[in-house]
Amino acid sequence: MGDYNGIGPEIALKSILSPAVKKACRPVLVGSIDVFEYYVRRFRLRLHLQETRLENLSVDSKRIQVVDVGPSEKPVVHPGTQTTLAARWAGAAITTAVESCVSAIFDGMVTAPVSKSSMIAARYSYPGQTEMVSALSGHSSATMMLVAGEFRIGLATVHIPVSHISQHITTRLIVDRLLALHRTLIDDFNIRSPKIAVLGLNPHAGEQGVLGKEELTIIGPAITRARLKHIRAEGPFPADGFFGTQSHRKYDAVLAMYHDQGLIPLKMSGFDIGVNYSAGLPIVRTSPDHGTAYSIAGKGIASARSMIEAIRLASKIIHNRRKRRHD
Amino acid sequence: MGDYNGIGPEIALKSILSPAVKKACRPVLVGSIDVFEYYVRRFRLRLHLQETRLENLSVDSKRIQVVDVGPSEKPVVHPGTQTTLAARWAGAAITTAVESCVSAIFDGMVTAPVSKSSMIAARYSYPGQTEMVSALSGHSSATMMLVAGEFRIGLATVHIPVSHISQHITTRLIVDRLLALHRTLIDDFNIRSPKIAVLGLNPHAGEQGVLGKEELTIIGPAITRARLKHIRAEGPFPADGFFGTQSHRKYDAVLAMYHDQGLIPLKMSGFDIGVNYSAGLPIVRTSPDHGTAYSIAGKGIASARSMIEAIRLASKIIHNRRKRRHD
Repeated sequence: MGDYNGIGPEIALKSILSPAVKKACRPVLVGSIDVFEYYVRRFRLRLHLQETRLENLSVDSKRIQVVDVGPSEKPVVHPGTQTTLAARWAGAAITTAVESCVSAIFDGMVTAPVSKSSMIAARYSYPGQTEMVSALSGHSSATMMLVAGEFRIGLATVHIPVSHISQHITTRLIVDRLLALHRTLIDDFNIRSPKIAVLGLNPHAGEQGVLGKEELTIIGPAITRARLKHIRAEGPFPADGFFGTQSHRKYDAVLAMYHDQGLIPLKMSGFDIGVNYSAGLPIVRTSPDHGTAYSIAGKGIASARSMIEAIRLASKIIHNRRKRRHD
Repeated sequence: MGDYNGIGPEIALKSILSPAVKKACRPVLVGSIDVFEYYVRRFRLRLHLQETRLENLSVDSKRIQVVDVGPSEKPVVHPGTQTTLAARWAGAAITTAVESCVSAIFDGMVTAPVSKSSMIAARYSYPGQTEMVSALSGHSSATMMLVAGEFRIGLATVHIPVSHISQHITTRLIVDRLLALHRTLIDDFNIRSPKIAVLGLNPHAGEQGVLGKEELTIIGPAITRARLKHIRAEGPFPADGFFGTQSHRKYDAVLAMYHDQGLIPLKMSGFDIGVNYSAGLPIVRTSPDHGTAYSIAGKGIASARSMIEAIRLASKIIHNRRKRRHD
């Protein structure tokens, strides 16, 4: 559901109507049935919902099943308004979805956008959903990946202030991210011998230590260590020249050191639909790469394209993992 | 000249042969006549050079005049090799060019690429040429701008490690950069009432303080202060979404907080020729937006396109400034 005062319920409902999603999976909504019914009526969508308990979910249901979970306080929908109650409902939906993926009731989950500051006000003290899903699934750290067609970006650090990036970049972290990316490219994206480019942290990738030392002392050694583990990692490359020459096309994935270094090029790449994937977890979780978009919430004009792509990617990853297990 | 073991002399000489440059200005080379002669022979260029002292420069010369300045030690050209001597020659050329611009012998200058680490080894302890030119022209801090067609980026910080960015970002700095950009857009680019977009520093522009405070405590107040001075500044915008939606097209310039935040989108923008401009100085200085390219030095295959654009932009700025003075 995501934050019910944002565009989350709208794009979830709209995506269910798309032929691509109907073909890809059997969707189940998790959140408030009242909220979903509200938006079905508001946008006059041709959807028939049915409240269902987790233990009664059926693969044959003709209606869209909704698992209604949340705080005892009823949701109050005011599209465009940021409230703590909406975040509490969103948090309950995420928690239930993760638990149901861990116990294999669901094959995967797709999250709709939430507001970080509301989530924190509601005592979900995670920097983002990726971290929340990681923690709830019992894993310390997923690697946040952005996927747009063949353009795949992994992030070494994600939702932290720029002033904290350097202290988070350790050889251990980079090696772990490279291992996670390598595995996910093989298992989830079905790439036999993946090649990964690693970006530098500093301008000009530090220019031999003159503009920063992390490339020499941390990132370079991490690449060497990963290569000893037979991971085809290369770099560190200066980020501006790398993307300016479209070098990402020569690699199966790129490891960026921080949020904007990866997301600016991805969003500029011409692929208009990006999908967020939490790589390295036992469960499969994707999400659209945009926020709550409060300013257009409730207007019926939100595009479900990124949500649809997120559902398609989750379904593809589930398929690839299943195939690999049976090989 | 730039570093004579890089592609600097090659692209300087090639650009002089281009019709666009012949039309735009009367070029004078500053550096070693021996080096320039070496490359003229090596690449068999149809150019006739003539050593000339600064005080004897003539606007009617049929040959390309070369002001030969440098250390007493003769240059030793080994294309592709990084040497301190090459940096000493490059440093002397920059120094002479700046002084000759300040004393109005030249109308402007265009610098060829140097190696930062060699320059530092040669005791030119500047983070980059922008800073060196600023200091030599008697100004503490130029605003580095990247210009590619109508896409103009100003940088709040430039050649510093990512770990130092936050401590450099002050309200004073941002206001100064906005004032410099505003003036340069009017005086140098002939834009009557320029609109400037300001990017946030942190992911999602800090998301209301959750992912970093600089937007609330420094960048936001700086924009307010600039607006009180009648500068049409807007922001801070989350950088990834800003460029993802091509919002830079709605502004005359964008102020980025750090190197890669500005240069990744500029180099990906589809304009293949970027030019570097040191805005806010009394003298006019531009440069191509690439480095020494040691790996292809001496091969005759370097493209002079960015150099040619740098010369054209310098000439245009000189023209605009002159026109404004006479208005």
